[in-house]
Amino acid sequence: MKIEHLGIAVKSLGLSDDLFSKLLGKDSYKQESVEREGVVTSFYQVGDSKIELLEASKEESPISKFIEKKGEGIHHIAFGVDDIHSEIERLKKAGFQFISEEPKDGADNKIVVFLHPKSTNGVLVELCQEKA
Amino acid sequence: MKIEHLGIAVKSLGLSDDLFSKLLGKDSYKQESVEREGVVTSFYQVGDSKIELLEASKEESPISKFIEKKGEGIHHIAFGVDDIHSEIERLKKAGFQFISEEPKDGADNKIVVFLHPKSTNGVLVELCQEKA
Repeated sequence: MKIEHLGIAVKSLGLSDDLFSKLLGKDSYKQESVEREGVVTSFYQVGDSKIELLEASKEESPISKFIEKKGEGIHHIAFGVDDIHSEIERLKKAGFQFISEEPKDGADNKIVVFLHPKSTNGVLVELCQEKA
Repeated sequence: MKIEHLGIAVKSLGLSDDLFSKLLGKDSYKQESVEREGVVTSFYQVGDSKIELLEASKEESPISKFIEKKGEGIHHIAFGVDDIHSEIERLKKAGFQFISEEPKDGADNKIVVFLHPKSTNGVLVELCQEKA
């Protein structure tokens, strides 16, 4: 396991790309739309991990709801794993709850699954695995 | 720059240490009290980065206030830098605001400084440098 990326909910990808490129001293290496999730994303490499900025691309996007409730800020932490199915098994046995039963396609060539923050101290945790 | 650690505000270090050791599949490698900040911390190594759980050790701790306002969850992201003073200079010139003028002693043998979340998209950003 490693911290694959950290997701940050933002209102405007334009403004925040400007801000984070100054903060991190480098430009975003990729922007990508994830239609099904209703988000547009922008990625920065930081050491061995990434920062993923997330802007809502439709009103019912989870990012709109998050910003409405909590404001802009850190949205989720994603742990990169080698075998997502065995990790899901391990964590289910340990009593963790998942938002969906099966991993789905996510941004950045990954399959992803989210744990329910109720079972993880209010932290939205994503597991992700590089697609073969 | 790398993601040195991710700080997570928790109500009970005991309960959350149990939870995170299950989630991460490993035990905390260190617990440490930072008196001046009013926190007790617990650290997990995850790849090249760390997870830092933070419990308030007094009522006026920033962690108590954070949990009162937002509930348990991700509190800050810390970027590890080689020269904290030159990074502070660089970021001040770029228009970022800092919570304190000078770096202070933090947990885990670091000197640390925080940027004001107003200037960083609602994200509490820490810069930290290993003490010589």
